[in-house]
Amino acid sequence: MSAKSPAEIPDIVIGRLPLYLRALRRLQQENESVTSSHELGRRLDISSAQIRKDLSHFGGFGKQGTGYQIEYLIDKLQDVLQVNQEWMVVVVGAGNLGIAISHYRGFQDRGFRIAHLFDVSPQKIGERIGEFVVQPVDSMHNIIRDEGIKIAMLAVPAEDAQEVADQLVEAGVQAILNYAPININVPLDVQIQYIDPVTRLQHMTFYLDG
Amino acid sequence: MSAKSPAEIPDIVIGRLPLYLRALRRLQQENESVTSSHELGRRLDISSAQIRKDLSHFGGFGKQGTGYQIEYLIDKLQDVLQVNQEWMVVVVGAGNLGIAISHYRGFQDRGFRIAHLFDVSPQKIGERIGEFVVQPVDSMHNIIRDEGIKIAMLAVPAEDAQEVADQLVEAGVQAILNYAPININVPLDVQIQYIDPVTRLQHMTFYLDG
Repeated sequence: MSAKSPAEIPDIVIGRLPLYLRALRRLQQENESVTSSHELGRRLDISSAQIRKDLSHFGGFGKQGTGYQIEYLIDKLQDVLQVNQEWMVVVVGAGNLGIAISHYRGFQDRGFRIAHLFDVSPQKIGERIGEFVVQPVDSMHNIIRDEGIKIAMLAVPAEDAQEVADQLVEAGVQAILNYAPININVPLDVQIQYIDPVTRLQHMTFYLDG
Repeated sequence: MSAKSPAEIPDIVIGRLPLYLRALRRLQQENESVTSSHELGRRLDISSAQIRKDLSHFGGFGKQGTGYQIEYLIDKLQDVLQVNQEWMVVVVGAGNLGIAISHYRGFQDRGFRIAHLFDVSPQKIGERIGEFVVQPVDSMHNIIRDEGIKIAMLAVPAEDAQEVADQLVEAGVQAILNYAPININVPLDVQIQYIDPVTRLQHMTFYLDG
């Protein structure tokens, strides 16, 4: 595969690759071995031309007219997204949300494994949550540094999010998935993504008949 | 405010309005009364020119040089997004995720109130989850129809998501927030948004030093 540098490929294209990967793995579960940009497009509600253009950034994945080999394309997309390895992830915040994240079974076979769950509250520290024992935020820095962990999920109250994010970055975290409903500032070389269901709901209510 | 029809305004602009609203409410909590496109841009990591352009779709919100009145702009954005009212929402799926959603305190003062929690499992039906009693999916259609509920959050396993979405649409739901890690097809006049933390994580790993 031709190796383009990240800077050459628009971020919006990168953002669609995980959707392609998810749809391809679904097709694989359905025992399909070959698919087309049309089939992918139908499933994802994205035009087939867009899909072909996005994938062309990474070299030729399919021969003209024969479609995409699903297993091959999954492997290549996992290479591009660097999820053919397992990334360790820490979760900060052991409230309802942090607990739900820690119980979620969907991370592991998609490239991620939750390694630690942290909280600041003395009532929660030491508590067993599934396979985790809640650890004190005080120990977070050393654990992240010693284990070389690069990814964190932030499930703390909005008012604490910036401070915790600063601590995570200081410890060496390079990517934060922030569930707190607030924007936080991170250095340019640190990745940040947001999950806020309310912003998604408000996006949709714009279109509803009031 | 000039009333543009939804079709005239790019969907990507609509998607940013909830972020502006969230940042403005944060500023209000910090006891600010006036802000600028520069301040908003700094907090949201969006250019001030983009913010001014986005807001100009809805008429003039600020006088040149005097900035935006926060309370006024919040009110107008809530009007545009139709969240100056409270929308009733149903949650389908009473697993860990559905339970966490049901416990989440962040919906109510941002335009949404969870009205019902449904599950298909006989072991879960009748169980008390916070202020909710889990109701059978069999009763979902009539409850949604009778109460005129238009919004649903889907927290069921991937393999059940399409079937449940079809049932929701059949009952009159016009907007679905899908937490199941699978794309689903809905009619053109039904809104759908996705929450899948893994796609967000995979977006970020592209940029990490492997």
